[in-house]
Amino acid sequence: MELHLERLPKSLELARKGDNAVLRYIDERLLPGELRIDETDDWKVAVEAVKTLAIRGAPALGIAGAAALTLWVQQACNSDDLARIAEEIASARPTAVNLRWGVERALTRLKELSCPSMEMAASALFDLVQAMQDEDERANRAMGAHGAALLEQGAKVLTHCNAGSLATYYYGTALGVVYAAAEQGKIARVYADETRPVGQGARMTAWELARVGVPVTLICDNMAASLMAQGKVDAVIVGADRIARNGDTANKIGTYGVAVLAQAHGIPFYVAAPTSTIDSNLENGSQIIIEQRSAQEVLRDPIEGVDVYNPAFDVTPARLITRIITENGVYEPQSLFAS
Amino acid sequence: MELHLERLPKSLELARKGDNAVLRYIDERLLPGELRIDETDDWKVAVEAVKTLAIRGAPALGIAGAAALTLWVQQACNSDDLARIAEEIASARPTAVNLRWGVERALTRLKELSCPSMEMAASALFDLVQAMQDEDERANRAMGAHGAALLEQGAKVLTHCNAGSLATYYYGTALGVVYAAAEQGKIARVYADETRPVGQGARMTAWELARVGVPVTLICDNMAASLMAQGKVDAVIVGADRIARNGDTANKIGTYGVAVLAQAHGIPFYVAAPTSTIDSNLENGSQIIIEQRSAQEVLRDPIEGVDVYNPAFDVTPARLITRIITENGVYEPQSLFAS
Repeated sequence: MELHLERLPKSLELARKGDNAVLRYIDERLLPGELRIDETDDWKVAVEAVKTLAIRGAPALGIAGAAALTLWVQQACNSDDLARIAEEIASARPTAVNLRWGVERALTRLKELSCPSMEMAASALFDLVQAMQDEDERANRAMGAHGAALLEQGAKVLTHCNAGSLATYYYGTALGVVYAAAEQGKIARVYADETRPVGQGARMTAWELARVGVPVTLICDNMAASLMAQGKVDAVIVGADRIARNGDTANKIGTYGVAVLAQAHGIPFYVAAPTSTIDSNLENGSQIIIEQRSAQEVLRDPIEGVDVYNPAFDVTPARLITRIITENGVYEPQSLFAS
Repeated sequence: MELHLERLPKSLELARKGDNAVLRYIDERLLPGELRIDETDDWKVAVEAVKTLAIRGAPALGIAGAAALTLWVQQACNSDDLARIAEEIASARPTAVNLRWGVERALTRLKELSCPSMEMAASALFDLVQAMQDEDERANRAMGAHGAALLEQGAKVLTHCNAGSLATYYYGTALGVVYAAAEQGKIARVYADETRPVGQGARMTAWELARVGVPVTLICDNMAASLMAQGKVDAVIVGADRIARNGDTANKIGTYGVAVLAQAHGIPFYVAAPTSTIDSNLENGSQIIIEQRSAQEVLRDPIEGVDVYNPAFDVTPARLITRIITENGVYEPQSLFAS
């Protein structure tokens, strides 16, 4: 296996173009067929990209939130509208806490400036997003190092959804652990759940792992149990969209089922997520709002009389999580918040 | 809820057309968009329909096996070829034991006739298949009555794959239990796993339940755990493709995972299958051959460097099965064969 981490794409980036800031992002709806990088200086286009899942992944949403507010400040700054616009961006999707966290970091930065000009405000926010991007990559590489130490030589890892470079600014959380372990020659194979209905596992995880040279096998979500029973899975690693104080973790729909299966088979179940994913306002997972999405994602052509249930996330209770890996280290889920 | 069981279609039927026997069958690959009934008097077309999943479902495959041999006898009977043709039909798909069972019933019938003419042989087999069809419906209705008694008023049932009328001659095994319970007013709702990669739950189970008037909600396979955690599932009922002597049960890929989840949530897990599904040659489930199908079923357009794992079935150990329901009654899985 030859690793080519240099092929790992950045999923989004706030960059300079002349005097302007522009958001560049991979339209992930087009993967794996087309790797297209879109560019916009319009905050509304950025918000729409978040709503339509062109941009997705909790850590990437944090950066997208701050970046969208930067574009608004640059574009049409009117401080009377600031709170309303910030709320519109922060509520574009309800479950991943990082989106609101990113917007709030930007608001905090604005408050630190006393009576700035529009140019000063936009420039300060641009610098903030650059710092957030750097932080994201550093956090992911730190999670990678901490998590890789948990894996044995020849590890076969199962993951659900995409918590890769495509879900962050760069490198990935759960897949960051995979990349760091692969650099140490530890990874024998990754099994990627396809992750219905949106297919992040099939379209993004399998694609980015193969692009980089990590051996990857795509499975349907309902095949994970069979692999585990055959002893083909040594560890499960997933990302997170929101973690409550007690360690309960919201992540892509299907994660909870994989955690139950892992426990039934005696397989460790790891969550890798930056500390920005911890929602200190929530005592436990029952308080996490679960986004419900359209029936059409599940069933393109409706069948008369058939209802559809399509929650985008579920909550894995802390008792099913072996360890949570953050940029600061490896924690028992119950002791994460205290740390 | 108004039930319209008269709308429930027969999935296949060996019928007379003039002097000839013809096999009529719903091409289930076209559901739910199109309900098309194909007709053939060519045994090779029947075998191809089995291989391509136009005809599927363990009990339906039993009838299809005997019917295909009937068409061959009528078409080109040459007793020298009988064993070879019978084997070709019986091995069209490897996991469901009913296919071979149906072919062997036809061979046994032929052996009972001493030096028959081709017409006599074809006529005897036609009568056998008629009897098998009647038996199938009677067995399904008996399973329905036995199984319905296990459900409480207002039951919310989860099922995986399609073990309905479309998987049998008529009425269904797991869904036969649902129909019988619905006639008693017991069924509040059925949750149908979509059952990737072929989508039997989305395309067949949801469709046939809605057609008949049973409230049905389609979910992705990875959502079952979340429903169970919310207390929305009172019982799981599935069919079977092959049952070993100890009660271990092969069924559509994903069934094993659902059984693990059901146990973790204290939900009863029922298998409904005719006794023809029991393979008395097999001591336990580890001896069941699992059909591996093409990568393209999972991933229509290959991704460079991405492997695909696509077993069509998995094995649920007897310890996870609360009861097995056959036409003869309700059994603990371990005591099924002794009965």
